[in-house]
Amino acid sequence: MATDTRKELVVMKFGGTSVAGAEQLKRAARRIVAARDAGHDVVAVLSARGKTTDELVEAAREISECPDPREMDMLLSTGERISCALCAMAIKDLGHKAISLTGSQAGIVTDSSHTKARIIDVRADRIREALSEDAIVLVAGFQGVSTESRDVTTLGRGGSDTTAVALAAALGGDLCEIYTDVAGVFSADPRIVPEARKLPVVSYDEMLEMAASGAKVLQLRSVEYARNHEVRIHCRSSSDDGPGTLVVSEQETLERPLVTAVTHSSDEARVTLTGVRDEPGVAGRIFGALAEANVNVDVIIQNEPVSHGDGADLSFTVEGDDMATAVDVIEGLGAAKGVETNDEIGKVSIVGAGMRSHPGVAAKVFKTLGDEKINIEMISTSPIKISCVIDAGRVPDAVKALHAAFELGEGAIHEEDPTGEHRPRVGPDDEGAQDAA
Amino acid sequence: MATDTRKELVVMKFGGTSVAGAEQLKRAARRIVAARDAGHDVVAVLSARGKTTDELVEAAREISECPDPREMDMLLSTGERISCALCAMAIKDLGHKAISLTGSQAGIVTDSSHTKARIIDVRADRIREALSEDAIVLVAGFQGVSTESRDVTTLGRGGSDTTAVALAAALGGDLCEIYTDVAGVFSADPRIVPEARKLPVVSYDEMLEMAASGAKVLQLRSVEYARNHEVRIHCRSSSDDGPGTLVVSEQETLERPLVTAVTHSSDEARVTLTGVRDEPGVAGRIFGALAEANVNVDVIIQNEPVSHGDGADLSFTVEGDDMATAVDVIEGLGAAKGVETNDEIGKVSIVGAGMRSHPGVAAKVFKTLGDEKINIEMISTSPIKISCVIDAGRVPDAVKALHAAFELGEGAIHEEDPTGEHRPRVGPDDEGAQDAA
Repeated sequence: MATDTRKELVVMKFGGTSVAGAEQLKRAARRIVAARDAGHDVVAVLSARGKTTDELVEAAREISECPDPREMDMLLSTGERISCALCAMAIKDLGHKAISLTGSQAGIVTDSSHTKARIIDVRADRIREALSEDAIVLVAGFQGVSTESRDVTTLGRGGSDTTAVALAAALGGDLCEIYTDVAGVFSADPRIVPEARKLPVVSYDEMLEMAASGAKVLQLRSVEYARNHEVRIHCRSSSDDGPGTLVVSEQETLERPLVTAVTHSSDEARVTLTGVRDEPGVAGRIFGALAEANVNVDVIIQNEPVSHGDGADLSFTVEGDDMATAVDVIEGLGAAKGVETNDEIGKVSIVGAGMRSHPGVAAKVFKTLGDEKINIEMISTSPIKISCVIDAGRVPDAVKALHAAFELGEGAIHEEDPTGEHRPRVGPDDEGAQDAA
Repeated sequence: MATDTRKELVVMKFGGTSVAGAEQLKRAARRIVAARDAGHDVVAVLSARGKTTDELVEAAREISECPDPREMDMLLSTGERISCALCAMAIKDLGHKAISLTGSQAGIVTDSSHTKARIIDVRADRIREALSEDAIVLVAGFQGVSTESRDVTTLGRGGSDTTAVALAAALGGDLCEIYTDVAGVFSADPRIVPEARKLPVVSYDEMLEMAASGAKVLQLRSVEYARNHEVRIHCRSSSDDGPGTLVVSEQETLERPLVTAVTHSSDEARVTLTGVRDEPGVAGRIFGALAEANVNVDVIIQNEPVSHGDGADLSFTVEGDDMATAVDVIEGLGAAKGVETNDEIGKVSIVGAGMRSHPGVAAKVFKTLGDEKINIEMISTSPIKISCVIDAGRVPDAVKALHAAFELGEGAIHEEDPTGEHRPRVGPDDEGAQDAA
């Protein structure tokens, strides 16, 4: 935690749109140099430029319908290396020492789960060495090296956030700054709710629930990593200097409103199994098989057998892209008489650490949606979140109604930017872009 | 030299145009698999796809006028990694085990001269390990890792040829196959001399002289490396199965014609220093300073002081691109009274191991050019080469005249491809493309 005599370390992470063109990349370089000039040791983690990753994925698809995961990682890891090498050139032209490192050179050691590897160790000796020689260190995000086979691995989409947080934790950095094309975390997606407010502070738990329920400003795993290692995250815009959103521990968030934000996602699908054999272990087999096929199941409901009289009904939701796979898996198991699907499903959620101590929140959610004649098909809750599965077409109405009902657009807590001038540009998707909340 | 019981190893190198699009890359994969199916252990070295390297250079230029060499290497090395990862995917789809390795993973250890590093060791343990597990190994060409600082290095343009030869030498491979978009080494550039003949065999020394005097089919350093380690090279076309040109030791080339090929280059410049102070060490200072500025000097002539009466005249030729640098260096030294330049200079050379024992070759060259009224401005010779510096505009005439005078288009030695069907496609430049001879 930077308690020794050396300069305070800051880790800065720049998403793909923040380094897309030469101008953006040079702007990122100037920001990095400014932090250095302010007296910090600086480690910057960069994503691949603009659409580079998409183009590499497309090149792989042209070659193979089902590209080998190890080779996919070798392929995709080049994008971040390109960003870092170019940024190091730009920083040197600004008169500072700089060195780019691959994930492997930076000591990001992972397991061997190609395309979705997990960081198991950070051996940052080479970074420390470079910092001690007064260099700014650029680290290729999203990648590491597997501990057993010494292969290049990647951490999954958005993995650069996790790289940045992991480096901040390993190097004793106080703060990890995540620069994207939006100005912070909002009380709802400003494209749906124009009066949505930028949140000055959210807790790790809130951010986790928000990331899991549709907010794309930070990768879920990076928030977990930050919570576990007490790294403070500052989500901010790469195009202006205004404050963004701090993601910190609950002790730091003092006064909490009941509800912090409304999140949503419109790309969900529901799979309903009818006539599931009512015997021990059947649910375990079904969800075990889905997990093995890499299908992430979200909300699950099992009904008493009413309509069919011969076995239970079981419904669950998955991401829209996973629906076909889920159906294949279920039919392969033969554990149900019928399988019905609906891909016109969305989800709206409210998140807030304050609702732990206020049991009336759920009732208010249901009443608000009921007043709007929005049918709630499934419900799932956590101590700080209530999610409702609804018709995809009604998601915008639900978000607006809940945002208004809980008065999230008004001064429920101190707003650091009352002018609203740091409203986000809702532009092309960044790796760390915010689709919701 | 593959004297043990395991399968004979073949190293195959594919140039940039041979892996440019998905179709070419899949064709390369099929060739690699065919070699494997024929019972060989296979290591394939790939260049960056098509114009990838040019695009990366352009991206660097957009960021910096004078990109840092270490970062340039980090940047450029990504191109070959992309080719290898994609090719490994294609080979796996053909039902074979395959693994792609970076230059560093493949054990290509170099010095620290970024952008023009030299291989100092090949630690191919990881390749051997993969081969012993029945995998086809894809190695990213053109790159290595520096022994001291563990940084990514590159070997200079065309360096993939050297990677391939070095791996063949280290792994005890008998043969290094270099696949490009031309069918082999020719007796002259077929774009200038349509009746030019594909040469079935040339010696290392001949190939070295040809590479140094304009033939671009093989990188000069790869030929040196092959000669020093007795690796036989087979230059052949990636688009057909016909035999190409073998580059082997002189013992293997038995019957030799007097002259093997005519090479040329049109992009030369002459720098003439007038009034050079006639004192010891002045030439050393001049050419030392040019070498330090990375200017490659080709032909040098020092005249007796006649025209000026106050100091010697000294002329030398350089690549056209280096002329401005050379003039800057000379003027900085102040060792001459005047500097004159001419960038309309070309060079035509004849190469042949047989000329060692035939002193009349030079006379025939001079007479042939004289008959064409082509003025010879400078001459430089080696035991197996005669080069004449001439007006750039007369280069094609000189090439045609010399090719005809030495009867290189006819059956001077056995021609394995009398139908001429393997004449080269003279298409877009490949990394290993043949501009001349």
